[in-house]
Amino acid sequence: MSAHKKSGEDAVIARLRRIVREPRGARVRAGIGDDCAAVRVGPRGRLLLLKADAVVEGRHFGKADSPRAVGWKAACRAVSDIAACGGRPAEVLVTCVVRSGQAGAWLAELYRGIEKAGREYGFHVVGGELARTRGPAVINVAMTGEVQEKHFARRGGGRPGDVLFVTGALGRSLASGWHLRFRPRHEEACWLVRRFRVRAMMDLSDGLAADLPRLAAASGTGFVLDPVAVPRRAGATLAQALGDGEDFELLFALAPADASRIEAAWRMRFPGVRLTRVGELAARGVRRGLGGARGFDHFAA
Amino acid sequence: MSAHKKSGEDAVIARLRRIVREPRGARVRAGIGDDCAAVRVGPRGRLLLLKADAVVEGRHFGKADSPRAVGWKAACRAVSDIAACGGRPAEVLVTCVVRSGQAGAWLAELYRGIEKAGREYGFHVVGGELARTRGPAVINVAMTGEVQEKHFARRGGGRPGDVLFVTGALGRSLASGWHLRFRPRHEEACWLVRRFRVRAMMDLSDGLAADLPRLAAASGTGFVLDPVAVPRRAGATLAQALGDGEDFELLFALAPADASRIEAAWRMRFPGVRLTRVGELAARGVRRGLGGARGFDHFAA
Repeated sequence: MSAHKKSGEDAVIARLRRIVREPRGARVRAGIGDDCAAVRVGPRGRLLLLKADAVVEGRHFGKADSPRAVGWKAACRAVSDIAACGGRPAEVLVTCVVRSGQAGAWLAELYRGIEKAGREYGFHVVGGELARTRGPAVINVAMTGEVQEKHFARRGGGRPGDVLFVTGALGRSLASGWHLRFRPRHEEACWLVRRFRVRAMMDLSDGLAADLPRLAAASGTGFVLDPVAVPRRAGATLAQALGDGEDFELLFALAPADASRIEAAWRMRFPGVRLTRVGELAARGVRRGLGGARGFDHFAA
Repeated sequence: MSAHKKSGEDAVIARLRRIVREPRGARVRAGIGDDCAAVRVGPRGRLLLLKADAVVEGRHFGKADSPRAVGWKAACRAVSDIAACGGRPAEVLVTCVVRSGQAGAWLAELYRGIEKAGREYGFHVVGGELARTRGPAVINVAMTGEVQEKHFARRGGGRPGDVLFVTGALGRSLASGWHLRFRPRHEEACWLVRRFRVRAMMDLSDGLAADLPRLAAASGTGFVLDPVAVPRRAGATLAQALGDGEDFELLFALAPADASRIEAAWRMRFPGVRLTRVGELAARGVRRGLGGARGFDHFAA
C-alpha cells in the first residue's frame, strides 16, 4: 500500500464522518478527528474535554495479563489523549463487558488499577456499567477533562517549517511490556502548553508512521521526517519504532523560535524523559522519511 | 434466590464501589448508583450529566439485526438514562469494537441509526474510536446531557407513602422487537420534572423486579407493588413484565398530593402513552408484591 493512500481505518473514519452531521453554534469547539472532543460548558475561557476509548482482550491485553495492569492501561490511554490536548482528567465512567470468569476478583483488580491511575492523575470514577460477553472482554473508559481554552492543543494548527518533537522512545511497546505500565505524558503536556505555543499535538497510539500523517493532514501540511533521529526503545528496529504503535508518547510541533529554546528548558524540567527533534512540517503534499513504513491499522485490508 | 438477597450484579457493583474513592468537594453531585453521574461544571444552577453504556452482540442484539436499529438502540439506551435524570442529551462519543465483516457497510448503517436518534433527541456525535475483535461486537455510547439542578431526578429521594408510577407497558421487549425500536421517554421525563416534584426516578432496563428494589434501596425505603396493576405488553405474563428487562420505561415516585393530579394532566399531554400507578414506597424493610420474580441479572450465579 502506498504511504499516500489512506489506511483502512482512516478510510472507515472518513466514511463515518460524512454520516455525522456537524454541530451548529459555538458549543462544540473540537469534535471528530482530534484526540478529544472539546465543549464549551464551563466557566468562560475553559473547555470540557471528552474522550472514550476501549481496550479489547486479545488486541490490547492478553488473558494472562494482570487485570490491575489492564485497568491502569485502560485509564491511562484516555489520560494520554486528554494530556495531548493540554488538559487534566476529571471524571471517568467505566463500561466493563467481561467473560464469566472475570466477574469477581478479576473485575475488582481491574478497578484497583483504574483507581491507582485516578490517584496519580487526579480523576474520579463516577459511574459505569457491567455486561457479559461470550467473547473477548472489552473495557471502555469514558473520561472528561478540563483545559483553559488558550492552552487547548489540537492536531491542526501546525505550519510548514514547524519543528516536530517526540517524547520518550518508540517501538516494541508490546514486546517490552511498556503498553501495560506506561505513564502518560500528563505533566509534560501541561508544562508544554503553559510554557510554549504548541502549534499541533497528539499522542502516539498507532505508531509515528500512522499518526504523523494524521497530524500533518489535520494541519493542512506535509512533513519531512528524519528517520535516523527517531528515538527507539532498546532493541527496536526503525520499522518497529515507526509502526508498532501503543507508544503513548507526545508528538508535537513548535514554531522554529520556540523549538530553539525548548530543549534546554525541557532537560531542566524533565531530566529523565527524552525529547527528540524528529523532523519538520512541510508544504502540503511533501511526505518524506517514512519510506514504506506503516503504523498499526485496526482495519488494514 | 430470595428477593431479599442482593443479585449477583448488585453484589459485584457493591464490591467495586468499595474500591472507588469518593470524590471530594462540590463538583460531583451524583456518581455511582444513579442512572447518570452529575457534575457541576456549567453555568450556576445547571448540571452536566454523564452516561456510558454498551450493547453487546449476542446479548443486546443479534447478528441478523439491522445495524441501523442497533445504532438507534445503543444511542437511545443512553438517552433513556439521561431522560430518567430529567435531562436532555448533548454530545456523544461512540466506541465501536467490531468483527472484520462489520468494518464497512455495517458500521455506516450503525452510525446512521445513531444519527437518526441524534436528530430526534438533539445530540451530536463529537468523537469515537474503532477497534477490532475476534468475538462479539461491542458498541459503547458515552453521552453528555444537561439538566437544571432543580429538575435533576435521582433514584434516591423517595419517601414511604410516595406513589409509584410506570410509563408504557412492560415485558416481552426482546420477543416483540421493542428493544430495537423503542422511543426513550425523553419528552415525558422533561415534562415531568418541570411540572411535578419527582421524588425519585429511574429508567427500567433490567425489569421492574430488579429495578424497583434499587430505587427503594437508594431512597432508603421499602415498597409495596400491586402486581395486578403492572402494565403488560400484549402477550406478556406477569413474570415477563417484571423480569424480562429492556423496557426503557420510566419508574418514578410522587408525593400523594402530586399523584392525585398527574393522571389527568398526563392524559392531556401524552394521550398515546399509558401511565399506571403500580404501588407505593413503604417503610424500609417492607418488600411486597414481587413474589419470587427476578429481573435480568448480568451476573446471576
